[in-house]
Amino acid sequence: MQINRHYEDLTESYLFSTIAHKVSAFQQAHPEADIIRLGIGDVTRPHAPAVIRALHDAVDDQGRQETLHGYGPEQGYDFLKQAVQKYYGDRKIELEADEIFISDGAKSDLGNILDLFSSDNTVLVPDPVYPVYVDTNLMAGRKIVYVSATEDNGFLPLPDVRQHADIIYMCSPNNPTGAVYDRAGLTAWVNYANEQGAVILFDAAYECFISEPDLPRSIFEIEGAKTCSIEFCSFSKMAGFTGTRCGWTIVPKALAEGKLHAMWLRRQTTKFNGVPYIVQKAAAAVFTPEGMAEIQHTLDYYRENARVLSETLDELGIWYTGGKNSPYLWLKCPNGMDSWTFFDYLLEEAHVVGTPGEGFGANGKDFFRLTAFGDQERTREAAERLRCLLRK
Amino acid sequence: MQINRHYEDLTESYLFSTIAHKVSAFQQAHPEADIIRLGIGDVTRPHAPAVIRALHDAVDDQGRQETLHGYGPEQGYDFLKQAVQKYYGDRKIELEADEIFISDGAKSDLGNILDLFSSDNTVLVPDPVYPVYVDTNLMAGRKIVYVSATEDNGFLPLPDVRQHADIIYMCSPNNPTGAVYDRAGLTAWVNYANEQGAVILFDAAYECFISEPDLPRSIFEIEGAKTCSIEFCSFSKMAGFTGTRCGWTIVPKALAEGKLHAMWLRRQTTKFNGVPYIVQKAAAAVFTPEGMAEIQHTLDYYRENARVLSETLDELGIWYTGGKNSPYLWLKCPNGMDSWTFFDYLLEEAHVVGTPGEGFGANGKDFFRLTAFGDQERTREAAERLRCLLRK
Repeated sequence: MQINRHYEDLTESYLFSTIAHKVSAFQQAHPEADIIRLGIGDVTRPHAPAVIRALHDAVDDQGRQETLHGYGPEQGYDFLKQAVQKYYGDRKIELEADEIFISDGAKSDLGNILDLFSSDNTVLVPDPVYPVYVDTNLMAGRKIVYVSATEDNGFLPLPDVRQHADIIYMCSPNNPTGAVYDRAGLTAWVNYANEQGAVILFDAAYECFISEPDLPRSIFEIEGAKTCSIEFCSFSKMAGFTGTRCGWTIVPKALAEGKLHAMWLRRQTTKFNGVPYIVQKAAAAVFTPEGMAEIQHTLDYYRENARVLSETLDELGIWYTGGKNSPYLWLKCPNGMDSWTFFDYLLEEAHVVGTPGEGFGANGKDFFRLTAFGDQERTREAAERLRCLLRK
Repeated sequence: MQINRHYEDLTESYLFSTIAHKVSAFQQAHPEADIIRLGIGDVTRPHAPAVIRALHDAVDDQGRQETLHGYGPEQGYDFLKQAVQKYYGDRKIELEADEIFISDGAKSDLGNILDLFSSDNTVLVPDPVYPVYVDTNLMAGRKIVYVSATEDNGFLPLPDVRQHADIIYMCSPNNPTGAVYDRAGLTAWVNYANEQGAVILFDAAYECFISEPDLPRSIFEIEGAKTCSIEFCSFSKMAGFTGTRCGWTIVPKALAEGKLHAMWLRRQTTKFNGVPYIVQKAAAAVFTPEGMAEIQHTLDYYRENARVLSETLDELGIWYTGGKNSPYLWLKCPNGMDSWTFFDYLLEEAHVVGTPGEGFGANGKDFFRLTAFGDQERTREAAERLRCLLRK
């Protein structure tokens, strides 16, 4: 038996284990230090009451013979696909219900979608980036070309028409940079993808944080996107489902003359058995009027954290992306520090933990990520400490 | 962009759609006919009360900030891995907790595990077989060699040492045949796999139906299995989780010097985000004393159906496998009928629906699958109709 040798090309990431080790060593040396963590990308607010009610009801269904739900459609129940369809329809994006596939989260589908493509495709991945885009392609032995996101392009690179591409990763609002493409930026990528015959894998997991009405929340707001794009979205940040697991993937039938839609359906019916019925009921409750009002309340809570942190960086004159329309802030480390030096400095002097940009790629080495998913009071306290420490 | 051309090697299965079409046409022509379906492989009994209580409690956890569970370990929570570890330990199978990976079901992991292997491996698949084993390998362009399961070998083929193998699929108790390997049969396969340097992918999804104490319920009851086997198991049939989705996969560290364990951990942390917290809590409740008692009660309900059907076939002198230690009965179609002819005959004359064996492979063409997952009263009625129709 031969193993898949491409796994040997993966490099182990020590980012979060190194952070944990440094924080724990500091805490041991300074037991009195009150450490505030702004590094996590996980939600902290509980599920909306409408979601909890739907979960209890669905659990009761599973306890009664007449309402037990066994194997469901691998691609999701109609009640949830139709709710997602309406979520897009309300923004004038017309999708067929069976172009929507319910998933257990964007991460799974972003990895699994690669089953549909030849291994000799050329893959464009931005740097810095969510490491999963890189690793899932290395596992299949695909050639990766990095697209440089930098301070100069505001971490929103545009396509280089001289560069060939087959598969293009985009994430907007971006993790880790929080940068958001406007309509012109997305249009440039859609036109390029259509010219190249490439497919854009569009990670829209943070679309719910966009509040400016002119900024696109879906690639399908762009003309021509349906012939070149697959969109991945998630209830994780939208409704705090990081531990409850649900998302959706849109594969338009206009893409590659319907081939990719048919292949994805085949892939999912062969290698997946659908999302738990009770979780799909919970996800559908997010789209009810009560659910939408309640999740907006929670998103506003996180937005306020982002606002407080943005205001602080503005006052300090520190360059950053994100913080608006995004739960992430990506700041240039002050005083010429690199990202690990700044990490240590912030931990030691302010007892605040963030994420060094180097962990997301070479272009992140002078940058630093803060997140807005924490407690409001603690985030305000962290902002105050930053203000004191970094005031000129 | 080039698609994965291997998808073109897949053949569309029309098995269940053809069945549905035939049944619906018959029902339309005979609206008064009272059709009994013994074709389904899905459970019909509700979740155990202990499971329902655990689900409600876990849902409440997700509704409170202090008990919200966000991202969990991709490989599953310790509380569930330790419960599975004890489930094996009680049968004297010693596993390390981190050799157990919690999954959303055996089907997903049976497909995804193939990520770890080179595409030029030779794959041994029994015929007849659960079609997913074949399709997931065709998708990756692997060469499949069929191992012939027939009446002569009781649908329990043994290895042919002249045949090279890299990956070997086994399912015991088998879907669709219900046949169960004894210790000698499994030992022959384990020895062969170790000699070949092959890996056995052992699908144990129906192990809970084994009641004879001498029959192995896990490949790891066989000496030498840890250096050549990965086991897939599921709460689907054990606890009626077909719509609630949870299973586990055991990758021993002794296999390929730990390489496959490390690779699977890497695969899962990169392409999966774990099973919902609430579902893992429900699964853990299955292993409590109340949970185990309650699921045995349900399994006994299905076992009684299998017994009634077995008794009927015994009376009729029809050859079959399964029915004991399995929810499936795999019978030889009487009077020389092939499986589709018998399907039509049974539907028209007895208004009973089963599954033609041809749908599971060429060797199934004279055989027919009945399942024990139906209602007890209806199953008895179906047995009575079979008795009247097929009495000599």
